[in-house]
Amino acid sequence: MPRRASTLADIGEKALIEHIAHLAGRSVGSGWALSIGDDAAILRPRSGEELVISTDAQVESVHFRFGRESLRSVGRRALIVNLSDLAAMGARPVGVFLSLAAPRAATFTRFDGIVRGFVEEAERHRCPLVGGNLSRAPQWSLHVTVVGACRRGRALRRRGVRPGDLLYVTGSLGRGALARLRADALGRPLTFLPTPRLQAGRALARLPGTRSCIDISDGLAMDLENLLAQDGLGAEIDANRLPRPRGFARACGAIGVDPLSVIAAGGEDYELLFAFRAAGASSPDPMLEAKLGLPVTRIGRVVREVGIRGLPVEGSPHHF
Amino acid sequence: MPRRASTLADIGEKALIEHIAHLAGRSVGSGWALSIGDDAAILRPRSGEELVISTDAQVESVHFRFGRESLRSVGRRALIVNLSDLAAMGARPVGVFLSLAAPRAATFTRFDGIVRGFVEEAERHRCPLVGGNLSRAPQWSLHVTVVGACRRGRALRRRGVRPGDLLYVTGSLGRGALARLRADALGRPLTFLPTPRLQAGRALARLPGTRSCIDISDGLAMDLENLLAQDGLGAEIDANRLPRPRGFARACGAIGVDPLSVIAAGGEDYELLFAFRAAGASSPDPMLEAKLGLPVTRIGRVVREVGIRGLPVEGSPHHF
Repeated sequence: MPRRASTLADIGEKALIEHIAHLAGRSVGSGWALSIGDDAAILRPRSGEELVISTDAQVESVHFRFGRESLRSVGRRALIVNLSDLAAMGARPVGVFLSLAAPRAATFTRFDGIVRGFVEEAERHRCPLVGGNLSRAPQWSLHVTVVGACRRGRALRRRGVRPGDLLYVTGSLGRGALARLRADALGRPLTFLPTPRLQAGRALARLPGTRSCIDISDGLAMDLENLLAQDGLGAEIDANRLPRPRGFARACGAIGVDPLSVIAAGGEDYELLFAFRAAGASSPDPMLEAKLGLPVTRIGRVVREVGIRGLPVEGSPHHF
Repeated sequence: MPRRASTLADIGEKALIEHIAHLAGRSVGSGWALSIGDDAAILRPRSGEELVISTDAQVESVHFRFGRESLRSVGRRALIVNLSDLAAMGARPVGVFLSLAAPRAATFTRFDGIVRGFVEEAERHRCPLVGGNLSRAPQWSLHVTVVGACRRGRALRRRGVRPGDLLYVTGSLGRGALARLRADALGRPLTFLPTPRLQAGRALARLPGTRSCIDISDGLAMDLENLLAQDGLGAEIDANRLPRPRGFARACGAIGVDPLSVIAAGGEDYELLFAFRAAGASSPDPMLEAKLGLPVTRIGRVVREVGIRGLPVEGSPHHF
């Protein structure tokens, strides 16, 4: 292993890729016929499955800052935000590609910490790192492409909601945004990392009542807007029902932010927001909690009238 | 369409993604059940095929510079270098993902020119842009993941050469590196773009005599080393046979560079280097040219002794 204080330029591309391959371990056999070390990786899809592929990026000074969180956390989040897209589609992870850019003068310590975090998270979800790219750049960035699979025709989409559908979220909202706001306001390290709701997404994909699903990455208001936009519908939300983490109002108060704004516009929760067909008199809530294996809250319903009512905060503009 | 002088920050992520989706056009029906506009794209693989997936990046000031070449050229090259990896595997392109990072203050003109170049190249090779990501960053970068397919078990790999195999290259060598050296030395615009050898790669994958294949991205010396390394073998090269573009020696002389060094260490040719089984007394050369549809040159053979003989320039160190 290279010396920790060595720069990436000293170590060279070949040795750095060998280090990644060593950390990533063997993935051939898990559907991959070829992984790191050739011009491309080769996947043998299972018959009857469709592939779900998504790309997301984490850029230094935009999505993360060194010193505010651990190196492992930077690497882990880069994968988590991608796995969350698979969760929202109801897919199981199959493998992941990492295009990593870093400064020539960066230390091996940083490289190693970030890659270890990434691979740790990959192992946790049985999503082997099977390929990628390494290039120099003035700043760090991690561009990740994740490959998932699900039974043909079963992937969850954004389109498909109908008036009367019930709207649900998994877990609680506001935790991710609050953690970042607190870290910034109090100068404390950022220790929160979201959990990609892969099991819940796969369970939803198996339930015939699930209409559509999205992960909450940009805040409830904007992601709800995205869920409804393709079908040209609106929603009525019961703001009192929005599930908050324990001590949320107090923690928001301590740093002078409005709890509902944090939930509606803060983002970074990576919980699932889904529309479920209302059928019969009995509530599907207990069945959903049992099938998804985590708390689920009904927060409102889909209506014909475009726009979101009951959520006093609008989606923040699509920032760039 | 946004005003050309607007900044990306003014236009916003949503409108920029809509513009990309508009340029990319419809891809559903070409194997994709879902493309831009959801949490992920969905691919329905053809039965009996395996998928070949590769990632490569182009970073501003490392791989390209604004002003030295056209915006379209920047976009096109980002896809070409990825398609070249598919060519080296003998795969046909199926679709591509683009994770684009750009400064907030960048103009729409740049964004539009780069994306148009990318999409133009994608259409040329029937490789639809089916997804991606847009994020801000201090500098431009294009991180591309390309998906290809080929018949199960037929993909070409680096591993598999045997002593006595004949070594071939497609086209001519040195053109890509010389074009860049000339542009820099003479302050002229860079107009050369390589051609991904997709048709030749697919033809090679169908020929039972093909042992292994790689695309020449880092220069002949290093890529030959990469081709031989996994099997622990060496090569004897006949430097006089290396195919050069017309007027190559003169053009190299004019800017004071050694022609053989440009070929051996310059890179950026994106021609294919492959090992072919020698069988019988008759030369496979005419058959190869006919099947691959472009000039092919036998440049040497694989030998047991590790190392490359006959190429008076060593592989440049793996830069970072």
